[in-house]
Amino acid sequence: MTKRILIIGIGAGNPDYMTVQAINALNQVDVFFVMDKGVAKEKLVALRKDIIERFVNNDRYRVVEATSPERRRDEGDRDYRVAVDELNRDKQHVFERLISDELADGECGAFLVWGDPSLYDSTIRIVEAIGKAGNHTFDYEVIPGISSVQALAARHRVPLNQIGRSIEITNGRGIAEGFPNNVDSVVVMLDSQDTYRKLVDQNLDIYWGAYVGTPDEILISGKLHDVAEEIVRVRAEARNKHGWIMDTYLLRKPGDET
Amino acid sequence: MTKRILIIGIGAGNPDYMTVQAINALNQVDVFFVMDKGVAKEKLVALRKDIIERFVNNDRYRVVEATSPERRRDEGDRDYRVAVDELNRDKQHVFERLISDELADGECGAFLVWGDPSLYDSTIRIVEAIGKAGNHTFDYEVIPGISSVQALAARHRVPLNQIGRSIEITNGRGIAEGFPNNVDSVVVMLDSQDTYRKLVDQNLDIYWGAYVGTPDEILISGKLHDVAEEIVRVRAEARNKHGWIMDTYLLRKPGDET
Ligand SMILES: C[S@@+](CC[C@H](N)C(=O)[O-])C[C@H]1O[C@@H](n2cnc3c(N)ncnc32)[C@H](O)[C@@H]1O
Ligand SMILES: C[S@@+](CC[C@H](N)C(=O)[O-])C[C@H]1O[C@@H](n2cnc3c(N)ncnc32)[C@H](O)[C@@H]1O
Repeated sequence: MTKRILIIGIGAGNPDYMTVQAINALNQVDVFFVMDKGVAKEKLVALRKDIIERFVNNDRYRVVEATSPERRRDEGDRDYRVAVDELNRDKQHVFERLISDELADGECGAFLVWGDPSLYDSTIRIVEAIGKAGNHTFDYEVIPGISSVQALAARHRVPLNQIGRSIEITNGRGIAEGFPNNVDSVVVMLDSQDTYRKLVDQNLDIYWGAYVGTPDEILISGKLHDVAEEIVRVRAEARNKHGWIMDTYLLRKPGDET
Repeated sequence: MTKRILIIGIGAGNPDYMTVQAINALNQVDVFFVMDKGVAKEKLVALRKDIIERFVNNDRYRVVEATSPERRRDEGDRDYRVAVDELNRDKQHVFERLISDELADGECGAFLVWGDPSLYDSTIRIVEAIGKAGNHTFDYEVIPGISSVQALAARHRVPLNQIGRSIEITNGRGIAEGFPNNVDSVVVMLDSQDTYRKLVDQNLDIYWGAYVGTPDEILISGKLHDVAEEIVRVRAEARNKHGWIMDTYLLRKPGDET
């Protein structure tokens, strides 16, 4: 009669990114833990609820909402790692409470993770830490989902790698250190600072997308030098209009293949 | 009455990795182009046919098989790029013939791509090249799929990135140059040489998987130094038994987070 936890990737935007495996997993769930992010992310919570309603064909399940602790935004670079550690400890406490108070023995609980659970998401790490701490016994399983990286590449109809070459996936902080010298394709996530602007003097192609896979999707591509200012402007406008933005981009050294 | 081409990611192993979007796409197809790889890959062709039979609910479609040209295996490092270019030119001719001879105006043709079409796969590049060459007019669309990278991470229940850090995705040739110094997580695909053995003296964790998501799946993880020889042995045995192998691994510098 162990508890079971499913960490289910729901894809990054289009509900049709849901896999058959994820749909089957949803249908085994007794309790959905829906984390509310406080700020402007009601839309993402609503999308999770839409997915549950659309794909679950029983009415056995319950939905438990919890407020996810948030990282303070006013911290400098040096403290980033500490802040994230603190945040994850806070999240761990919330998750532990959910697992102990809201899930009965033998029941199955689920966290629905945006995109793919293995990419810039803390759910696996937190659930693993709770398991290791040993105060709670449960089994858990991870179901992959379509990540925003793949959604971006598909919508731009572009391969992530040049022939036989490597790819780096990084965040705004990573690309701020400059274009890495051992790869020619870099995917940047979690960049709230338009960091691509720092690289306009290099000969790079950019494939940028916001709200990829959703009805609000915006795609811009071209020589970074030519389109950077357009992206800055469009991004700011979209962010104002929606109150939040999620965007990702691929930067690529042009190959000799065209 | 333009021709339409769909490049559909079918996931890397488990047919349940198919997305709702990919299933809907399959059901619009008049002609499936199934590329036969000659060597030992009948299993992958069979899997594609299984997917078509399982998910398509009309009997309007036809299946056209073509033999995909293969790269000669006896070439040294220096010629790799040239060999791949040549191979892609050959493939382009095969694809062009399929599009011109096997697809009528107004019809929809599809290539089913293993895993995700944006990752170490030439289909997007070839279809784009045919479009640019201008002898054939068609629209095309790319549907993302669960890649082997995500399948591997999900089955090992491990995040791809350390907190706030970058990931590199590379191939056997890439990792043979050594562990890159600006990332702490590296995913290696397309390594037929057990190249991880070259890194056993470094303090690394490995998460290795073969035939991930299929009934033949094998997973091994641990300190690289401790498990490398086991992986070499298990890999050789599996390869002998099946006649072919597809395996991927994540190498990671242990973080300070445990
Ligand atoms: C915390 S990470 C989560 C990533 C997620 N696990 C995935 O697989 O895509 C959030 C970042 O993902 C990217 N992102 C997520 N969904 C996106 C979308 N639909 N369009 C563009 N970028 C997206 C943005 O870079 C955003 O800052
Ligand atoms: C030509 S690449 C194609 C990758 C594919 N597009 C994807 O998204 O996974 C083939 C390589 O993918 C990896 N691979 C594909 N399927 C796999 C599986 N089920 N298990 C382990 N590795 C796999 C292996 O490294 C193999 O050498």
